[in-house]
Amino acid sequence: MGNWKDYIRKVEPYVPGEQPREAGIIKLNTNENPYPPSPKVTEALERFSADSLRLYPDPANSVLCEALASCYGLDTSQVFAGVGSDDVLSLCFLTFFNSDKPILFPDITYSFYDVWADLYRIPYLTRPLREDFTIRREDYFIENGGIIFPNPNAPTGVYEPLELIEDILKHNPSSLMIVDEAYIDFAGKPSAVSLLSRYENLLVVQTFSKSRSLAGMRIGYALGSPALIRALNDVKYSFNSYTLSRPALEIGTAAVLDTEYFAECTARIIRTREESKQILKELGFSFPDSASNFIFARHEQVPAAFLFEELKKQGIYVRYFNRPRISDYLRITVGTDEQMQRFFTALRMILQGTSENRN
Amino acid sequence: MGNWKDYIRKVEPYVPGEQPREAGIIKLNTNENPYPPSPKVTEALERFSADSLRLYPDPANSVLCEALASCYGLDTSQVFAGVGSDDVLSLCFLTFFNSDKPILFPDITYSFYDVWADLYRIPYLTRPLREDFTIRREDYFIENGGIIFPNPNAPTGVYEPLELIEDILKHNPSSLMIVDEAYIDFAGKPSAVSLLSRYENLLVVQTFSKSRSLAGMRIGYALGSPALIRALNDVKYSFNSYTLSRPALEIGTAAVLDTEYFAECTARIIRTREESKQILKELGFSFPDSASNFIFARHEQVPAAFLFEELKKQGIYVRYFNRPRISDYLRITVGTDEQMQRFFTALRMILQGTSENRN
Repeated sequence: MGNWKDYIRKVEPYVPGEQPREAGIIKLNTNENPYPPSPKVTEALERFSADSLRLYPDPANSVLCEALASCYGLDTSQVFAGVGSDDVLSLCFLTFFNSDKPILFPDITYSFYDVWADLYRIPYLTRPLREDFTIRREDYFIENGGIIFPNPNAPTGVYEPLELIEDILKHNPSSLMIVDEAYIDFAGKPSAVSLLSRYENLLVVQTFSKSRSLAGMRIGYALGSPALIRALNDVKYSFNSYTLSRPALEIGTAAVLDTEYFAECTARIIRTREESKQILKELGFSFPDSASNFIFARHEQVPAAFLFEELKKQGIYVRYFNRPRISDYLRITVGTDEQMQRFFTALRMILQGTSENRN
Repeated sequence: MGNWKDYIRKVEPYVPGEQPREAGIIKLNTNENPYPPSPKVTEALERFSADSLRLYPDPANSVLCEALASCYGLDTSQVFAGVGSDDVLSLCFLTFFNSDKPILFPDITYSFYDVWADLYRIPYLTRPLREDFTIRREDYFIENGGIIFPNPNAPTGVYEPLELIEDILKHNPSSLMIVDEAYIDFAGKPSAVSLLSRYENLLVVQTFSKSRSLAGMRIGYALGSPALIRALNDVKYSFNSYTLSRPALEIGTAAVLDTEYFAECTARIIRTREESKQILKELGFSFPDSASNFIFARHEQVPAAFLFEELKKQGIYVRYFNRPRISDYLRITVGTDEQMQRFFTALRMILQGTSENRN
């Protein structure tokens, strides 16, 4: 006879980027936005009635879905919202990937895809990116149970043109394809949302955590055909009716409606990113051209693990993944101009130290 | 070759209790608290900094877990928090029920248990309650892959004594047992939390939605041995690191710390419930003795479905389940004294109408 301890699910716990509590740390490690959310969010928070919290939220998240629909020129029946894009993506795996054919995604990509596949017992096949971290489209022209990749990709920051996405869609009329656009607002390039009107089997997932400065509020969403959104809602209602809190609905809606602040904030981050690329090059780094709010960079001489530790000693946190093909890279979130100046000052000193040792 | 539409998960969508948007409706249909949350919640909301929303929340929910630990005299390592008790319970099913033996729960119980079991492909066996809706303890003395029931039970409101729970635990040293105490704070009777120090295989799940008037905030939690809590955290971190939002952590903590308001508010609801029982009896209803914030009642002559519809016409929403063994019952949430007066006025008129027809 077994014991309850034998029946506990065995997992490999994911280690999220560190969330130091000390003041004065420069956090360039979890791709948060360095700027606060829209002032409209502050107003929504001030307006929010604590008394209303005694009531359940609207299970359909209507006010938020309506705002998103209007923002993207879609119908409300094309919008689904959940508790962060991880919650939405996990639900998508559960809802859509139920064939016995493997789903396909890149070998270097968001680290939760294989976890959700294992969790829901979905077979999968990873497709190797080229050396420059771009997608080989032919890799996705084989029979499959679904396709998913981020665009721009994480943690590489590489943006794939819509032409490639559409070509993969054309080769896969029988497959559901999810484009995970967590970083698209920093791309300055078109979103796959523009393909939705022509492909009923395309789902685009986005988040409020990055470009809308609301990582702490936990809001993500999916955009797609009414058939796909209905399927997501059916599964959601079948096992968890109330997902987004009342404050999340109000705050998310306020953030979506302030398109002006959104445009300014993302433009500022893009500007800082482009300047940072220039400095990184001068310091001897190489990197795929980033279309996101981070830069995935390796130094020609100095190991990434060493730089990671040295920066940390100086209170500057970046992200390092000790994984095949990417263990030479640092993922550096784009901060404010001031934060980047402090980062580069520290980096220059560290590199100078190693250069003296090398000479 | 299949099509993506064939691979969409087939589910039976759950229909949550109606959430009418019109003003003036008396909502006695979803077991919400008729009183607002603690004034400390309002203060926490006013104090909350919108700017902090740009950062991810603490993945360990430390501030909230510490407050709950202190409230229940436990160690922080014995507390797990999630996005409502549905989220916590669903994660418990996924984490703990991985044997090929069936889990056991009552035939009349919270309607999501069989849904989660199906979702995660967990075999289950329902055990019939007695005619008076009490548990037959011997039903749980058979080999099983885990045990779960609410106490007080939903939708019956019946409270089972701790002696029964402990007896079932003693017969099941190899099984994990979950007691779902969503309504325990209205029982005026002991919680299974007092058994935690002696049973490493017991998990108690509670919620902020009812007794703490925070249905709109989505906060639930589990209390148990450090081994169980660690297992829940491992699974959570493996596929979704950030669950509770920053406002949820602050607001939840403020609510837990205001023990005085909590005691007053639950006492007031218990008083109204006891008065309502008396009036229901006088009106010809019978019901199991409720230890929760609702009463599950049937009228001796008038069908529940009819009363449900007639009350609705008058803007009073109660809950009706058209399911085997309980289709004669209405589940009536205990509202404010004023709401209950209006409810009883309407009910008297409806019953008088049917009585005239019957004579």
